Amino acid sequence: MPHISLDNELPGIVGLLRYRPETGRPLSALAETLLRSPNTLTPGERELIAAYVSRLNDCAFCSGSHSAFAAAQLPEGMALVNAVCADLDQAEVAPKMRALLHIAGKVQQSGRAVTAADVDAARAAGASDTEIHDTVLIAAAFCMYNRYVDGLATVAPDSPEGYAQSAQAIVEYGYLAIVE
Amino acid sequence: MPHISLDNELPGIVGLLRYRPETGRPLSALAETLLRSPNTLTPGERELIAAYVSRLNDCAFCSGSHSAFAAAQLPEGMALVNAVCADLDQAEVAPKMRALLHIAGKVQQSGRAVTAADVDAARAAGASDTEIHDTVLIAAAFCMYNRYVDGLATVAPDSPEGYAQSAQAIVEYGYLAIVE
Repeated sequence: MPHISLDNELPGIVGLLRYRPETGRPLSALAETLLRSPNTLTPGERELIAAYVSRLNDCAFCSGSHSAFAAAQLPEGMALVNAVCADLDQAEVAPKMRALLHIAGKVQQSGRAVTAADVDAARAAGASDTEIHDTVLIAAAFCMYNRYVDGLATVAPDSPEGYAQSAQAIVEYGYLAIVE
Repeated sequence: MPHISLDNELPGIVGLLRYRPETGRPLSALAETLLRSPNTLTPGERELIAAYVSRLNDCAFCSGSHSAFAAAQLPEGMALVNAVCADLDQAEVAPKMRALLHIAGKVQQSGRAVTAADVDAARAAGASDTEIHDTVLIAAAFCMYNRYVDGLATVAPDSPEGYAQSAQAIVEYGYLAIVE
């Protein structure tokens, strides 16, 4: 049960975005820009960063949601999401994404944990400055979304089916549709 | 020196918001809504939460900035900001703000660290559900802003004078002016 009385029964961040649309609108706009607007990283790759950070933060709702959203938009599907979240070093993932996910993992610990060597490694694997920027900001943003969702003890569905249904809606309509 | 080449010499998050206005706009809109829009918590009280979390995250730029922004808008000025950041339990701060800052400190650790007892204590001290919601979201948002600023190794001015000047601009023009 959430720590505060929401005026709806919607799970996770969806209930919070609807409870307080003043903050829900910029939060949704940020997610839409970071995860879905035109970018050299595909939506699936960006959702994989979101899923990885959410798993590190042990946030059931965000981890379930963004794993499903990544799986729905990656050619390798849920197998790659599960492999990355289980053990990034052993996962069969492209070198650039491995280096970016490594940076995302550092950001999850602390911004100060990211070293020049981490950034050089990503650049050597082909990452652009914009891709490094966006990776840091996606990882940082999910350190916010995860804390928001769990800090207010919102409800997370148990079944993977619910997250897979949400994935269809996000792929088709995007994040802004949640608050519009 | 920042990890990536920004197209400007601006310090901290200001350089990042200008570097990538697509994300700068929702990030600024979120700060404006959370810290300055009409609310039963004053702008000074909300900036105090931001300063406290930024200090816990050891983010020099955000801590310097939001300490100055809080001090400029609180009757007790920098003395209260310094007291809260040095030792919340010993600081002479109103019971409701103490309870909300305690929740913010839990959110800084993890969303899952916030307990029903923490929320009950804030409510007993007079906090409304919206104030509890906004405290959790401000604390969560600064776990993002802090990681964004430090994860890209942006530059932080050393002198308190720079932050005090920024405080005047924020109090007068707000956060949206940074990207408009």
